[in-house]
Amino acid sequence: MSALPPVLDRLDRDLDKSLERLFKLLRIKSISTDPAYAEECRKAAEWLVADLKTIGFEASVRDTPGHPMVVAHHDGPTPGARHVLFYGHYDVQPVDPLELWEDDPFDPAVKEREGMKVITGRGSSDDKGQLMLFVEACRAWKAEHGSLPCRITLLFEGEEESGSPSLKPFLDANKDELKAEFALVCDTDMWNPETPSICTSLRGLVGEEVTIKAANRDLHSGMYGGPAANPVRILAKILAAIHDDEARVTIPGFYDGVEETPSQVLQAWEKLGETAESFLGPIGLSQPAGEKGRSVLEMVWARPTAEFNGIYGGYTGKGFKTVIAAEASAKVSFRLVHKQNPEKIRAAFREFVEKRIPADCSVEFHPHGGSPAIQLSYDSPFLAKAKDALTDEWGSPAVMLGGGGSIPVVGDFRTYLGMESLLVGFALSDDRIHSPNEKYDLRSFHKGQRSWARILAALAN
Amino acid sequence: MSALPPVLDRLDRDLDKSLERLFKLLRIKSISTDPAYAEECRKAAEWLVADLKTIGFEASVRDTPGHPMVVAHHDGPTPGARHVLFYGHYDVQPVDPLELWEDDPFDPAVKEREGMKVITGRGSSDDKGQLMLFVEACRAWKAEHGSLPCRITLLFEGEEESGSPSLKPFLDANKDELKAEFALVCDTDMWNPETPSICTSLRGLVGEEVTIKAANRDLHSGMYGGPAANPVRILAKILAAIHDDEARVTIPGFYDGVEETPSQVLQAWEKLGETAESFLGPIGLSQPAGEKGRSVLEMVWARPTAEFNGIYGGYTGKGFKTVIAAEASAKVSFRLVHKQNPEKIRAAFREFVEKRIPADCSVEFHPHGGSPAIQLSYDSPFLAKAKDALTDEWGSPAVMLGGGGSIPVVGDFRTYLGMESLLVGFALSDDRIHSPNEKYDLRSFHKGQRSWARILAALAN
Repeated sequence: MSALPPVLDRLDRDLDKSLERLFKLLRIKSISTDPAYAEECRKAAEWLVADLKTIGFEASVRDTPGHPMVVAHHDGPTPGARHVLFYGHYDVQPVDPLELWEDDPFDPAVKEREGMKVITGRGSSDDKGQLMLFVEACRAWKAEHGSLPCRITLLFEGEEESGSPSLKPFLDANKDELKAEFALVCDTDMWNPETPSICTSLRGLVGEEVTIKAANRDLHSGMYGGPAANPVRILAKILAAIHDDEARVTIPGFYDGVEETPSQVLQAWEKLGETAESFLGPIGLSQPAGEKGRSVLEMVWARPTAEFNGIYGGYTGKGFKTVIAAEASAKVSFRLVHKQNPEKIRAAFREFVEKRIPADCSVEFHPHGGSPAIQLSYDSPFLAKAKDALTDEWGSPAVMLGGGGSIPVVGDFRTYLGMESLLVGFALSDDRIHSPNEKYDLRSFHKGQRSWARILAALAN
Repeated sequence: MSALPPVLDRLDRDLDKSLERLFKLLRIKSISTDPAYAEECRKAAEWLVADLKTIGFEASVRDTPGHPMVVAHHDGPTPGARHVLFYGHYDVQPVDPLELWEDDPFDPAVKEREGMKVITGRGSSDDKGQLMLFVEACRAWKAEHGSLPCRITLLFEGEEESGSPSLKPFLDANKDELKAEFALVCDTDMWNPETPSICTSLRGLVGEEVTIKAANRDLHSGMYGGPAANPVRILAKILAAIHDDEARVTIPGFYDGVEETPSQVLQAWEKLGETAESFLGPIGLSQPAGEKGRSVLEMVWARPTAEFNGIYGGYTGKGFKTVIAAEASAKVSFRLVHKQNPEKIRAAFREFVEKRIPADCSVEFHPHGGSPAIQLSYDSPFLAKAKDALTDEWGSPAVMLGGGGSIPVVGDFRTYLGMESLLVGFALSDDRIHSPNEKYDLRSFHKGQRSWARILAALAN
């Protein structure tokens, strides 16, 4: 452990330099979901490779049918050293609606917000900021000791925000190169700004885009209103039928594989003190909209959902147009828990919709990603080490949480590489990821680097 | 009647010249609903004024808080001559989706389509083409006789496609100038290409834009999916509740003022031979979506509707975004019949929505137009004259129809000027008004001019 203090000191000293590097990465508009930004995604990958080479990684941009991967390798201090894979993603969410941003989403800065120094910009938290924590920990370690404490493989993805279409084939094709003893993933939250956290479960995700087609063209609602099928009306009826009055999903078979959470786990979550008021208050809401009789933490960590992420049809511009649209679409996603099977859910949803399409209308589906939920094994030999390292850095005990969002890579690591993942993240719930005005606390950026340095030291032993 | 033949001959001879004039008007992108085209709307008004002056009208562009009106006057042959007001509108619908147009919507041409010569372009039918019929009839009359057969006032509106916000105050403020014995309105269809028609009823319209607001920002559907209210889900539930399984509108009080159509009228409509197949087949549909147990013509001419003209919320771009939107909106309109009261319908709709908004969410409404249905008096002394004139021109008896679309000006003429309106139009049901590839048959454009010349001659006596 004597190797650690100078590394931590260096991270303290070099904080401004690490910020400059992060800003360079944040300025690259690597929005993966919009094809218009494909070149920016590649630019981000190339920037990372160049940076990793300066630390001594053998790093390369690896093409995929979509946006490229970054893969990098560094030997451990000895031939038999512990081998870990660190995963992050360099792509970011779209920034619309742009008019709601207080700062340019791609011109990062450190600003004072509610008494805290924060890094502003799209990706500052999700996931460029978190990804760079580990890179900076490696850089400091290398600078101080000329080596890293573990053998390290890095995998940075560029399609995490658009369903990771290339990830599975890439893992499958590069098993031997990527397999390590276990994976470290930095894409999650702390419980609160004082409490470091390890995430032990994550919901899965199935995305579907559904388009209902009625007449062969847009119609004048005066000339055709009444007799002509209106796809917006059909779509609204279908979406409205997906939840019952208790907010349960009505799609047949939807709850297959969902387990009741053990009461001791529910009790531990209860102790965290989260209430409907504390959870919903900051976002301006007060009434839990999920299944009746469940706590908000259970809703997010252990219950599946059906969400409508987007809907559009007919005239959506300013003013009014008395039109009956030829088609209407919705983007629908399902958060999955436990043993729910993504492809069975997808099929059940499609059948549910198809049954409700009038005989003279039609429906088209477009899949967007699919991944099962994951549950970290409590027996992992590395969990305790990471927990201790985090507790040392933050001065308060690390807690084990569930996660509501999906990190498909964790399931894919299990499936393709036979690896479990340790999910440690330093984001905060008010980071506004996926929203306008995304930020990352400067404190997370600083102590996150130190945390990874400590975890690497602990894992080396 | 001896004055008529040379006028008709001149209209035949000058058809190409009249087409050139129409093309000039069609090239002006006078889309009233989109503020970006305000200057184009003014340009259309100015073009009309300049053209009318060449015929000897005292014409002027008249400012309103929105797009300007065109008002023009021409004396009759004698001081006591019949005085009629002719109304049309120079504004047009938006052209999106542009990629579905076979021709540039603002570069009109005469093309062969399904064996007919048609004029292509936005506004060719609705309503620039129809408006110019009357102008050309006046021009020919003036050229042949140095005078017009009636005293004529023209009113051309520029906001018909965007709810006519300036019309009522303009009529109210210019009553004395605009009042005539009755109005002629050219914004309707023929029953079929062989059968000239007079429209004796029109549905009214109430437009509402409803926006449901939930969280104070867009949310990550993984982090908040479950507990957080989703405005798309709330909106879908509300819209789905508006129609019952029989396609009747469930809003309390909605059917107040709706009368059952007399059986002899229903029988006359029956004789027109329209079926669900003939009405819906051309637009690619087959199942009437209106109230059960009514014919398609009754649905369109004599029954009210609730239509969803547009819906939008959340991520609507390419790809996928796992977001729970902060708000979602729909553009909803109601077609009214008989004595339904637009403002009572608006209030009932708002109450219906408000009752369904969760306690921690809110709703905003934005009104778009409101006009009652109209029913032309069968006792009008001018109806028979017009019917005979049309029968003479087309060689088959003119029929009296209902109209599904709203022409608010007809109600407004009644309210503000105490005038009834005679609705004669030469559009066809396949003109694709409000849709891509709008067209107007060259035959309508030619015989429509001749028809108005004949009607003016008949009304003069």
